[in-house]
Amino acid sequence: MLASWRRMPSFQRHVFVCINERPADHPKGCCKAKGGVEVRDRLKDELGKRGISKLVRANNAGCLDQCERGVSVVVYPEQVWYGGVTVDDIPELVDKHLVGGEVVDRLLMPDQPHLAGRHQFPALQVKK
Amino acid sequence: MLASWRRMPSFQRHVFVCINERPADHPKGCCKAKGGVEVRDRLKDELGKRGISKLVRANNAGCLDQCERGVSVVVYPEQVWYGGVTVDDIPELVDKHLVGGEVVDRLLMPDQPHLAGRHQFPALQVKK
Repeated sequence: MLASWRRMPSFQRHVFVCINERPADHPKGCCKAKGGVEVRDRLKDELGKRGISKLVRANNAGCLDQCERGVSVVVYPEQVWYGGVTVDDIPELVDKHLVGGEVVDRLLMPDQPHLAGRHQFPALQVKK
Repeated sequence: MLASWRRMPSFQRHVFVCINERPADHPKGCCKAKGGVEVRDRLKDELGKRGISKLVRANNAGCLDQCERGVSVVVYPEQVWYGGVTVDDIPELVDKHLVGGEVVDRLLMPDQPHLAGRHQFPALQVKK
């Protein structure tokens, strides 16, 4: 290990925002055309404002294979998929889910059997 | 919901490979220069060969903030971080961890307290 390596972060949540771009005439559309970059930027901004950027990481992702439902966002470790996310949805997504642990039902993609109907996950642990 | 929407996949594992590119003279280096794209391609190829691409998804990721340790790979839902990953590591990573659930210690990034020393996760459930 190099001495210059920074300490490894342990994110409590890791949020991937699709910013994949397809040609303008592609029938699937793409998350970039639907505002993926702006959604990611707003997410990073809202995490920063709340001082939780080291606890919750926002990341670019390539195609998440849900193009028709974009902008696609997936939250780990719980693997909750959100679709049709806009910049205006971000404050609620951050406060309710990323901080509070509660799924934002109105943005939830359908057909997520792995959640087994679960709507509440651990709230963010923030050291005071 | 549009009738044309495909059924939502529930991946058992979701693997993010950093393919972020920085200028050639950037002191941090970058995963793309270290072979991130080739690592992702090999990963997709090996998953396809084993017929498990619908159970384990390989994804591009933007910067995972571990540039010095690249190529960086993170496996969810367990949030296991691997560093210095090369194309030649991929068959072992797939067979041992992504299928078998066992952490590949030799590729593990240091300082992952969230793992609490855990080295075994559920094996992939493949319907016969």
